[in-house]
Amino acid sequence: MVKISPFAPKRLPALPPIDGVRIAACAAGIRYPGRADLMLALFDPGTTVAGVLTTSRTASAAVDWCRAHLAHGMARALVVNSGNANAFTGVRGRDAVQLTTKAAAEAAGCLEADVYIASTGVIGEPLDPGKFTGLLGGLARDAKADAYEVAARAIMTTDTFPKLATRSCKIDGVEVAINGIAKGAGMIAPDMATMLAFLFTDAAIEPKALHEVMAPLVEDSFNAVTIDGDTSTSDTLLLFATGASARRGAARIARGDDKRLDGFRAALFELMRDLAHQIVKDGEGLTKFVTVTVTGAETKQAARTIAKSIANSPLVKTAIAGEDPNWGRIIMAVGKAGEAADRDKLAIRFGDILVAKDGEVAPTYREAEGAAYMKRQEIDIAVDVGVGKAAATIWTCDLTKDYIAINADYRS
Amino acid sequence: MVKISPFAPKRLPALPPIDGVRIAACAAGIRYPGRADLMLALFDPGTTVAGVLTTSRTASAAVDWCRAHLAHGMARALVVNSGNANAFTGVRGRDAVQLTTKAAAEAAGCLEADVYIASTGVIGEPLDPGKFTGLLGGLARDAKADAYEVAARAIMTTDTFPKLATRSCKIDGVEVAINGIAKGAGMIAPDMATMLAFLFTDAAIEPKALHEVMAPLVEDSFNAVTIDGDTSTSDTLLLFATGASARRGAARIARGDDKRLDGFRAALFELMRDLAHQIVKDGEGLTKFVTVTVTGAETKQAARTIAKSIANSPLVKTAIAGEDPNWGRIIMAVGKAGEAADRDKLAIRFGDILVAKDGEVAPTYREAEGAAYMKRQEIDIAVDVGVGKAAATIWTCDLTKDYIAINADYRS
Repeated sequence: MVKISPFAPKRLPALPPIDGVRIAACAAGIRYPGRADLMLALFDPGTTVAGVLTTSRTASAAVDWCRAHLAHGMARALVVNSGNANAFTGVRGRDAVQLTTKAAAEAAGCLEADVYIASTGVIGEPLDPGKFTGLLGGLARDAKADAYEVAARAIMTTDTFPKLATRSCKIDGVEVAINGIAKGAGMIAPDMATMLAFLFTDAAIEPKALHEVMAPLVEDSFNAVTIDGDTSTSDTLLLFATGASARRGAARIARGDDKRLDGFRAALFELMRDLAHQIVKDGEGLTKFVTVTVTGAETKQAARTIAKSIANSPLVKTAIAGEDPNWGRIIMAVGKAGEAADRDKLAIRFGDILVAKDGEVAPTYREAEGAAYMKRQEIDIAVDVGVGKAAATIWTCDLTKDYIAINADYRS
Repeated sequence: MVKISPFAPKRLPALPPIDGVRIAACAAGIRYPGRADLMLALFDPGTTVAGVLTTSRTASAAVDWCRAHLAHGMARALVVNSGNANAFTGVRGRDAVQLTTKAAAEAAGCLEADVYIASTGVIGEPLDPGKFTGLLGGLARDAKADAYEVAARAIMTTDTFPKLATRSCKIDGVEVAINGIAKGAGMIAPDMATMLAFLFTDAAIEPKALHEVMAPLVEDSFNAVTIDGDTSTSDTLLLFATGASARRGAARIARGDDKRLDGFRAALFELMRDLAHQIVKDGEGLTKFVTVTVTGAETKQAARTIAKSIANSPLVKTAIAGEDPNWGRIIMAVGKAGEAADRDKLAIRFGDILVAKDGEVAPTYREAEGAAYMKRQEIDIAVDVGVGKAAATIWTCDLTKDYIAINADYRS
């Protein structure tokens, strides 16, 4: 029995239609019968796309395809399957991608080069595209403007809730919308954190500018979350901009540094961080959502490395699972990070509670106070390492027996 | 209830006396009443010492002391306590070390500079040396040549069995012995892997040569094991050489590259690797002992990084706990390591079973065969990454619900 995350939203956000985007999903039986595992999104002609893909040296065949085609920056269709990652599947994997994109291009009435693709699930098992290529025509006919929730459900693997977010903003006075769906759960760590996230907007932005706006936002959103320090072979973030708002008078923006994109950038960043947090909040087996902020570091990169060292430490994460204010393990994680830190100036806070300063336990700190704080569902850990002015924040969850249960039995 | 490791030896090795070493231990009530938590070793005049200490930026006060005194390379006493790591304890931590070494010097009748010290246990809580400084005189009087087992027990924390090893060899025709004790269990990762290991020999080797012989052996012994990727603030390896074999005609060796040390080096390395394996075999909550060998890497360092990425991956470790031959997660861990690897030449073996080659599942591989292999207690995973000729081996264990239980409740 899978337990639903304690952070699962009571009500899913309602995503408005995005002009120029239609979506459909169905159950293709890729791994389990009777569960939605295939989605198709269709985009109107003129839609631009920007993407950030996994840095894994063993990237999947679908990632290879996206990397090759993002250069031209135009999109007409997106096909995503769950249940099988089509990673480490050799020549058969490449063939599966070819067959899928060919079928999707026929269904969408577009060039194969305008089809984007992503697969998530088990690694190393051949993906049989015959299970779903015949379904794409029907999905194209059924595609609707309001199908974000079914799409978000179709890309889930061990996720316990679908991840949806929406924002709106103005570009040069014209209202545009941004919708996003994502999946996460396991193999979640920076570079990149999300396994899959797909964002949609009716903004009119040229491909290069779209990439320039989105790519820098990844560092403090999807790349600032970690569940288990593991990095998937399939991590894919794609942002599709249909440009339909141009019909309502919106400008078509060609440069990423165009001032008119400031509001869009802010809204997009909020949406990306929202989805990134949702991914952590559905971390396998989690009971706590943890924010780790490191200040006083030499550089931002050093602050991130130390924060990740804390956020990925099994001993820190199990202590949090046990509601144990075991700050000694935080000291350990700072120490092993390999970045400059002044042991004798180090300070630690749990929320507003000063736990340690100047390299030892704070005189005002009471263990009972720390223990009470650790019973919260959302935990803030702040560490000042006393050598500089740079800061970074990483979001993570605790490490529980249920994580082990889920991952020891995943394929069984 | 703590479960004893399934790898606990049925019979502990019998360590012979080392001429020039006497040891005693007792229960000082440092954390728990009635369990041995303090050991004292006394060395005859002329004993040399070499050490390798944690690379942590938040090293303990005891580690600071050892680092400062190893330079002169002579030793007369070693004091070790468990139950409290005396790490991140500020000025009080330094004072505790001063009081301990002063008391030990009085008990041993030596200079404070000839006393070495180590502490292991909880981080961040002040260590009260008043609990044990008064006991050192009695321990010095009681010290015996055959007390290795009680010493190995006194340095245990969450270890479930004491770790002992012995080897003998000849230096220039004269028989010398090497004994070692160690403790591990949690916060075990390369740099350095062991929390505490103390080695003793009657060989006659000058301090600089002793260091030159020992230090290079750490990489493929204590630094080649990992339990949870965490690195302790207290990791300490010390090798004491009494030189007593000189009385039986052994040469006193002044250079690390002296050919007469070849047999000693080999025996010392075997003993260090034996203790390192024992540490893994008592990994918290483990059920499997896992050997990860990476071949075909560009450099030895790259091979180590990839092997560690596999050995530290929570997803790989939980799959092993679940006896799931989920080799896709090994692909993931190779990919995230960031070192060169040719996805399309990658090969994986479980023991003698060829699982994958040339970037996809091997045609001869049968899942049932992999599943049967994973039921073994000792698992060999070999990965060839297909880009070069360098190789490295890392030893680790699985990640189980019991690891979580032990670490969520450690301080409770």
